[in-house]
Amino acid sequence: MSLLVVGSVAFDGIETPHGKVDRTLGGAASYFALAASHFAPVRIVAVVGDDFTDRDRAVFEGRKIDLAGVERAAGKSFFWAGRYSQNMNERTTLTTDLNVFATFDPKLPRSYLDSQYIFLGNIDPTLQRSVLKQIRGKPRLVGLDTMNYWIEGTNAELRETLKHVDILTINDDETRQLTSEHNLLRAAKHIFKMGPSTLIIKRGEHGAIMVHKNFLFSVPAFPLEQVFDPTGAGDTFAGGFMGYLAGKGRVNEQTLRSAMVYGSVLASFTVERFGVERLAKVTRKEITARARLFSKLTSFKL
Amino acid sequence: MSLLVVGSVAFDGIETPHGKVDRTLGGAASYFALAASHFAPVRIVAVVGDDFTDRDRAVFEGRKIDLAGVERAAGKSFFWAGRYSQNMNERTTLTTDLNVFATFDPKLPRSYLDSQYIFLGNIDPTLQRSVLKQIRGKPRLVGLDTMNYWIEGTNAELRETLKHVDILTINDDETRQLTSEHNLLRAAKHIFKMGPSTLIIKRGEHGAIMVHKNFLFSVPAFPLEQVFDPTGAGDTFAGGFMGYLAGKGRVNEQTLRSAMVYGSVLASFTVERFGVERLAKVTRKEITARARLFSKLTSFKL
Repeated sequence: MSLLVVGSVAFDGIETPHGKVDRTLGGAASYFALAASHFAPVRIVAVVGDDFTDRDRAVFEGRKIDLAGVERAAGKSFFWAGRYSQNMNERTTLTTDLNVFATFDPKLPRSYLDSQYIFLGNIDPTLQRSVLKQIRGKPRLVGLDTMNYWIEGTNAELRETLKHVDILTINDDETRQLTSEHNLLRAAKHIFKMGPSTLIIKRGEHGAIMVHKNFLFSVPAFPLEQVFDPTGAGDTFAGGFMGYLAGKGRVNEQTLRSAMVYGSVLASFTVERFGVERLAKVTRKEITARARLFSKLTSFKL
Repeated sequence: MSLLVVGSVAFDGIETPHGKVDRTLGGAASYFALAASHFAPVRIVAVVGDDFTDRDRAVFEGRKIDLAGVERAAGKSFFWAGRYSQNMNERTTLTTDLNVFATFDPKLPRSYLDSQYIFLGNIDPTLQRSVLKQIRGKPRLVGLDTMNYWIEGTNAELRETLKHVDILTINDDETRQLTSEHNLLRAAKHIFKMGPSTLIIKRGEHGAIMVHKNFLFSVPAFPLEQVFDPTGAGDTFAGGFMGYLAGKGRVNEQTLRSAMVYGSVLASFTVERFGVERLAKVTRKEITARARLFSKLTSFKL
């Protein structure tokens, strides 16, 4: 089943205790698509500027990634720069230049309209809804990511969009902010009333937890001897998660649990190097091997 | 196999967003013994004051808990009071009155000397070592808990004691402080050089991770709709963990993994009410039922 993602394709400047890059390919849709394409064909909806070169495009080529919906606009691509603290638990944004992203109005190519699995990346909820409206018929599964900026600034719009969403992927703080409820299980119940039937709480180095109406599932982050750069880990997780489900073509308790594991597996590769460097090189064999390590990491007999 | 624990039997004053108790039975050894006694006979080494009444003693009675090593001294029992922040992630200590604990010099009754499983609760590392020295022969398994106060103030003593320890149970910050290494896997390697072959990192609401020389195991905290009072959760975890191993009488990869789960199961009950209130009432049937929920919470098929 093909999977559509709308979100940023951007350039990032990243500084971590392990080094610094001034400009590298990034953006939520980039991480998402690279991760998801291991499992299912991915269609990207995004906008880039005239600084997006053939070399950048080449990162997506030779994979099941469709760039027909990546609009090219005059001007520069979205640029973000940030610096991580010594322990990498805090991140300071140094620059956010929206550039061509400021006037982004996603238009789906005709070839995208039959998409069955949809992921609405972290952008203006009005634009997220506009993408959904263009889809022909009712999609099989809609996932959505958002952040404090939209929860605060466009709350009513976000709630309108959430009515059409099956799976919400946010972090602890965003969950609490959206629901005004500190306890995450009770917060999930508030979110179920807004539309989604599933809440995935991303917890960085502590993994992720899925609160579904009928069950709970927890997956740890893979313990690594070196976390080089956490940028894109959450977007990679979402890509591995949605890609796995689209690849299976079935959404049930078993596939949802496995999808959580594959999301964590992919994210564990992303953080091993700067930007998409490691993710762009990971092989299906490496993914399978690390998924087996997740089994070992969590299995026990009573 | 019988299990010995040395640590505090105390009274606590606790304030959480859910309420306040001025004085309730607490102390690491109390939580530990109540949890462990579901699996194996427990021998407590501690000191109490003349304010420790028959009613307090009754909490331990009717269980496999031996109080022969609980010395009664003139004066008041150790008293601690603390207040949790609104989100319960921070705790402010309001009072620490060592009282009879200030001159505690643990003396093991003869009936304790053949103990095979030993847990050295969070006290002065010199006293921890003195307990170990009194044990006849080499014990099967020695666990140790400590804290920033001892890591800073009595580092050399602590390192001397660690030479005789198999399993160290501390939190993220303590691991980093003890090893001057931020990454937890690399920190574990430093700790293996100090003596222990196993490091258990307790992460509160994020569960716990075991780093063994030969394998890794991660267990989540059980998601609860209400965490009433986190006091004693770590001590309860240690009790469930060591109790399970002593009960099995075998320490191998499989029992270590299961012990982590039972530690988390017991801790999840402790936090449901103030102090030992819930822990003192939990039944073996409830423990088994919740352990099955942990299986559901973490199981997946690739």
